[in-house]
Amino acid sequence: MSFTLTILGSNSAAPTSERNSSSQLLDCGKGGSILLDCAEGTQIQIRKFKLRLLNIDRILITHLHGDHFFGLPGLLTTWHLLGRKKELNLYAPAELENLLNHIFTVSGAQLCYPIHFHAVDTTKHQCIYENKTISIQSLPLVHRMPCCGYLIQEKPGELKIIKEKVIEYQLGFGQIRDLKAGLPVTLDNGTVVLPEMATLAPSPPVSYAYCTDTAYSEDLIPLISGVHTLFHEATFMDQEQKLAGEKFHATARQAGSIARQAGAKHLLIGHFSSRYKALDGLLAEARTEFQETTLAQDGLKIEIR
Amino acid sequence: MSFTLTILGSNSAAPTSERNSSSQLLDCGKGGSILLDCAEGTQIQIRKFKLRLLNIDRILITHLHGDHFFGLPGLLTTWHLLGRKKELNLYAPAELENLLNHIFTVSGAQLCYPIHFHAVDTTKHQCIYENKTISIQSLPLVHRMPCCGYLIQEKPGELKIIKEKVIEYQLGFGQIRDLKAGLPVTLDNGTVVLPEMATLAPSPPVSYAYCTDTAYSEDLIPLISGVHTLFHEATFMDQEQKLAGEKFHATARQAGSIARQAGAKHLLIGHFSSRYKALDGLLAEARTEFQETTLAQDGLKIEIR
Repeated sequence: MSFTLTILGSNSAAPTSERNSSSQLLDCGKGGSILLDCAEGTQIQIRKFKLRLLNIDRILITHLHGDHFFGLPGLLTTWHLLGRKKELNLYAPAELENLLNHIFTVSGAQLCYPIHFHAVDTTKHQCIYENKTISIQSLPLVHRMPCCGYLIQEKPGELKIIKEKVIEYQLGFGQIRDLKAGLPVTLDNGTVVLPEMATLAPSPPVSYAYCTDTAYSEDLIPLISGVHTLFHEATFMDQEQKLAGEKFHATARQAGSIARQAGAKHLLIGHFSSRYKALDGLLAEARTEFQETTLAQDGLKIEIR
Repeated sequence: MSFTLTILGSNSAAPTSERNSSSQLLDCGKGGSILLDCAEGTQIQIRKFKLRLLNIDRILITHLHGDHFFGLPGLLTTWHLLGRKKELNLYAPAELENLLNHIFTVSGAQLCYPIHFHAVDTTKHQCIYENKTISIQSLPLVHRMPCCGYLIQEKPGELKIIKEKVIEYQLGFGQIRDLKAGLPVTLDNGTVVLPEMATLAPSPPVSYAYCTDTAYSEDLIPLISGVHTLFHEATFMDQEQKLAGEKFHATARQAGSIARQAGAKHLLIGHFSSRYKALDGLLAEARTEFQETTLAQDGLKIEIR
């Protein structure tokens, strides 16, 4: 399996005409479609990049600074206008639930689809959701207000059956199912077929960690150890390390350092300060710590596999 | 004087990739810069059309459906991030004040500039603001929730002094001031100069009426009689007149009819339903009632004079 990630916004704080504020769409295939944060303009970005607006099953909000959730009332209302029927699961710090209810009361919105609100304890590292295909964990972060990242992991897949062996051993449906599940099967002629005789190992599971907003914190490293792709905020360049610390943000070099220490395969950096018109400097700086770094710019689409 | 109007959003309800939801910027020169409604994405549209974000003095909100104010929290927060010092005057139905306070509390925003909230009684036709140059009146509209439009009028200007007459009569500063104010002056030689002998009539004052959302209502006509430019919503075409009535919206033909009966010089139509990809039909229909009609499409900039 693979996850398909699209960056909807890469700027910190206020949007610019080139860079919207924080939001990303992670399509986990059978595992569902997940929106990570929802800045103002997110629904417009989803349309602009021709993604499937109604496909989203789950929204994960990291924290309640406006540049991470001010697009939520509009998106939820638009789904009502489009006649959405599918339930929506929303994960966020508890205070958001009352606020959304207040907004809907004032704006006269009565949504035609069910929303299940899940209050996330941002101080805990725990599984907040799982289905047959994926699991989602909260990752406590260090910011000016309660904030957590999210780790989305594919579950280990089944063994892959070798087609030629199905013919050779004349395997039936039940026998294939057992072999894929790692169980031996006995043929009519008494031959025992072990899983390793008729199957290949599954694809290694993919994983994505979305870590924003946060100061540099080594406490994060064991929680995302071995992650395939890490998104880590890089609001500033290292020259502004003092300012970054004061504002509980990280620098590009620090993001690279976390990726290296966590043994990630790939690093995406984003949540850039508006002061950086060109982003080459941030990229170069992160790469001094971790070569496999990419700028998470608006519209970037990558397959995580 | 002239007013400069820029359309920031022309769609009803949900934004599309071509048309944002309701917002317009009216630059009244010395009278100030006024934002009319503030849909999600308004701050992004202001940047896109290269307008002066920090110039806005006043925001007028017609009603509290989300497509008319969901961009407000983001815009107000961005001003804080940009270090705005100038006070902001916000006119809207009363419930918005508590809601904004709730949003700011949850999102940890403490604005660095003063906001003066003015609760507007949408049922009353009254002057809600005036300065030396302009006045603003509320215009009760007929919608599913309390809603009013706004009439922004330039005040009649002073008489214009004729330069040649200043030389001919050797007029001093105080005499010019009196003549421009419509008062006669007596020269040293005893000659009385009447205002009509040394001045021209001022430019006719301009006015703009912003009327959305509303069902067709002839009660509006006397309130905007003789207006220079009228914006009237035209969510639907006349074929959908029944639906328009049920949803308390107007059709393009009805908008044209209001403009004709009010004796407007110019009509702008907007707040288009997403069902209309092309807008030619709406324009043609409004023009059957009122020839001087223009589509208020995103990015349109017009001088009202």
